[in-house]
Amino acid sequence: MPASAIRKLVPFADAAKAEGVKVYHLNVGAPDIKSPDCALDAVKNNTLDHVSYSNSAGLIELRKGLVEKYYKKIGIDIEVPELIVTVAGSEGVNLALQICCDEGDEVLVIEPFYTNYNTFAFMNGITLRAIPTDIREGFAIPPVSEFEKYITHKTKAILISNPGNPTGTLYPKDTVLALGEIAKKHDLFLISDEVYREYCFTEEPHFSAMNIPGLEQNVILIDSVSKRYNLCGVRVGCIISHNKDVMAAAMKYAQARLCPPIYGQIASIGALDTPQEYFDAVKEEYRRRRDYTVEALNKMEGVFSPNPMGAFYTVVEIPVDDAESFAKWMLTEFRINGETTMVTPAASFYKTPGVGKNHIRVAYVLEVPELKKALHILEEGLKAYPGRTI
Amino acid sequence: MPASAIRKLVPFADAAKAEGVKVYHLNVGAPDIKSPDCALDAVKNNTLDHVSYSNSAGLIELRKGLVEKYYKKIGIDIEVPELIVTVAGSEGVNLALQICCDEGDEVLVIEPFYTNYNTFAFMNGITLRAIPTDIREGFAIPPVSEFEKYITHKTKAILISNPGNPTGTLYPKDTVLALGEIAKKHDLFLISDEVYREYCFTEEPHFSAMNIPGLEQNVILIDSVSKRYNLCGVRVGCIISHNKDVMAAAMKYAQARLCPPIYGQIASIGALDTPQEYFDAVKEEYRRRRDYTVEALNKMEGVFSPNPMGAFYTVVEIPVDDAESFAKWMLTEFRINGETTMVTPAASFYKTPGVGKNHIRVAYVLEVPELKKALHILEEGLKAYPGRTI
Repeated sequence: MPASAIRKLVPFADAAKAEGVKVYHLNVGAPDIKSPDCALDAVKNNTLDHVSYSNSAGLIELRKGLVEKYYKKIGIDIEVPELIVTVAGSEGVNLALQICCDEGDEVLVIEPFYTNYNTFAFMNGITLRAIPTDIREGFAIPPVSEFEKYITHKTKAILISNPGNPTGTLYPKDTVLALGEIAKKHDLFLISDEVYREYCFTEEPHFSAMNIPGLEQNVILIDSVSKRYNLCGVRVGCIISHNKDVMAAAMKYAQARLCPPIYGQIASIGALDTPQEYFDAVKEEYRRRRDYTVEALNKMEGVFSPNPMGAFYTVVEIPVDDAESFAKWMLTEFRINGETTMVTPAASFYKTPGVGKNHIRVAYVLEVPELKKALHILEEGLKAYPGRTI
Repeated sequence: MPASAIRKLVPFADAAKAEGVKVYHLNVGAPDIKSPDCALDAVKNNTLDHVSYSNSAGLIELRKGLVEKYYKKIGIDIEVPELIVTVAGSEGVNLALQICCDEGDEVLVIEPFYTNYNTFAFMNGITLRAIPTDIREGFAIPPVSEFEKYITHKTKAILISNPGNPTGTLYPKDTVLALGEIAKKHDLFLISDEVYREYCFTEEPHFSAMNIPGLEQNVILIDSVSKRYNLCGVRVGCIISHNKDVMAAAMKYAQARLCPPIYGQIASIGALDTPQEYFDAVKEEYRRRRDYTVEALNKMEGVFSPNPMGAFYTVVEIPVDDAESFAKWMLTEFRINGETTMVTPAASFYKTPGVGKNHIRVAYVLEVPELKKALHILEEGLKAYPGRTI
C-alpha cells in the first residue's frame, strides 16, 4: 500500500511547528473559508436524542433535498433512487471503481491525476493507465486517437476529475462530449468526479458528464457536499447514476458500511439552503487568489504555472532537481523570520516514471495577504535551494 | 458482491408500513436507547465555524481522551500512536483485513459470524474459513485441535467478535487465552472485534484480546464509539494495535479517506464523560430484555435459544423449513391487529452450506412491553406458517 504523497511530509511540518516555526500550508486542499451558517446552525439546533443509523442510502430528507434543491437547479435531472449518499467523495470514487471493475481490470486516467485514485485502484487490484498531458498546454486533454492507444480488452472505465485536482483544469463542453464519444464507442463507464463543480472561473457554465446525450447508462457521477460548502470535515458526498444496475451494486456496498455519518447529513440538509451570494462570494475570493498566485508564480525565475480555470489548485514547474527533496528541505531547513511554506511534490500525481519530478501542486487556500507571504518564502526558498537547476 | 442479508428484507418491511402495518424490528442492532446527554450536548454546543478535515488518525483530543479516559480505566494499556479513529467498527474491520491479508489469503472465523465479515472479505478477495459451533452448546468455541484443521499456509488471521454478533456469546478469559495460543503457535493475527464490550451480563469482567500475554504484536483491536454510547449514527470507532507496522499500514489507508467525520468525533469526545450510572442502567435494561426474550422464546413450541451473556442478540432455532421464507412471509402475509414482527434469517451468518437455515437472529432492542407484543406475534406466526416443520 503506497503512502499518501500529500500527507507523507506532515511529520516534517509537525516537527517544524514544534520548533515554533510558522508553516504556510499550500499543500492541502483544506480551504480556510467559513462554512455556511445554515449548515452550522442545522447541527447546533438538531433535536436528536438518539443518534441511530440512517438508511444506508442516506436520510431521505437529504436525498430528496439534493435532487430537488441542488441538482434540478443546476440542470442535472435525476430521481431520488439514482442517488446514494456516501462518506464524502472518497468513498464515492472507491465505490465506483469497485462497481465497474473486477481485480485485474484497467481504468484510464488523465495524468496528472488525484493521487488517491492510485490508492483506491491499489486497494481494489485495479491498474490505472495514465494518458499524459503537457503542463505547457495547460494540461489540455489529447485527441480521441490518443486515448484509443491505451484501451485494451481489460479497460472498464475512464475516470476524470472536472474541474481537476491537482491541475485545476476545467474541461469545456466539447471535451466532455469527446470523452463521451470514446466511452460510447468502447462501452466504457465514465466516472466523473465533479466535486469542485462550484469552483469554475469561466463565464460558460460547468458541463456535467451526466448531460452527455445517449451516455446515460455509462456515466457515474461522484460529488461532494463536504467540498461544495466548505464542510470538508462532515464527510458527506454522493454517487449518482441513471444505470439501475450500478445503483443496485452501490447499495450493496453502502449496506456493508451501514450508513453515512448522521450529523454530517444534518449539516448537509442545512447546507442546501445556502444562498447563491455565498457561492458567488466564495468563487470571487478564489478567483482573486488564483489571479494573485498564478501571476506571482510566473514572475519567479524558472517557474511556470498554467492559468487554471477551476478548483483551487495549480500544478507548477519549478527549477529544482527533485520537488520532493525541495519540499522536505523547505520544512526542515529553510525559514524566513521563523516561517516556511509547505507545498506538495507532484510526482505522485503522475504514473509515468520520472515525469513530474520538478512539479509541485499549490493549493491557493489562504487569503491574499497570507498567500503573498507564503509565495515570497517559496520564491526565496527556490533561490537558496542547493538542488536548484538554473 | 453479495447483498446484505440483514437488510435485503427491508423493502418488504417498507411495503408493509406503507399499508399501515406496524412492524416490530427485532431484525437490526439499532437500540432504542437514548444517547448520553454529554455526547448530544457536545454537538449542540460546538463552536466550529469552519468544518475542515481532522488529522487522518482523528482529532488528537479524541485519541488522547480514548486512551486516558476510557482504555486506561478498563485496563487496556495503550499509547496514543497505537490508536487510529475509524469510520465506526465497519471501517475498522475492513482495514484490519486489508492490513493482514493479500488477495487470496484466508481468515478463520467462528460460525455463525457477523455477516458483513463476508462482505469485507469479498471486497478484499479474502477467503473466510468458518469453524462450526453448535447452538445446543451455546455456540461455545471448539478446542484448539479443531482450529488447527482449518489452518493452511494461506491463513493470516483469526477474526472474532467478543461478545459476539449474532450469537451474543461472550468468550471467557480461558477461551481468549486459548485463541491467543493458536495465534502464537501459527503466527497469525488475532483481530478482536469488541464493539459490544460494555454489554456483558456476567460478574467476571470482559477479557480483551489486548491483554493476552506475549501476543502484543499479533493483536488488532476493533472498537466502536458508536455502539458503546448508543450513538450508532455518528460513525466513529477505532483500530488499536501495539504493532507499529500494523499502525503504519492503518495510517496509509486512513489517509486515503482523508479523515473520520468531525461532528461524530465531537460527539465522541463528549461521550467520554458518560457517567458509569449510564452504562449500569443500560446494561441492566438489556439484561432485563434478554431475560424476558430468552424465556419467552424457549416457551414457544419447537423453539430454542441459548442464554447469551453479551451484546443484544440471540440466535434462535425455529421449527420452519426455511427461516428466510418465514421472515418474508411474516412481513408480507402475517398480521395480528395490523402488526407484525421482523427478524433476520440467520443462514447468511453461516458459511457452511445448508447450516442455519432454520435459525433466526433476534435483536432484543425494544422495551419489554414492546418485546412482549413482538414475541407474541412471532409465536403466533410460527404456529400459522405453512412451512412449519413440527
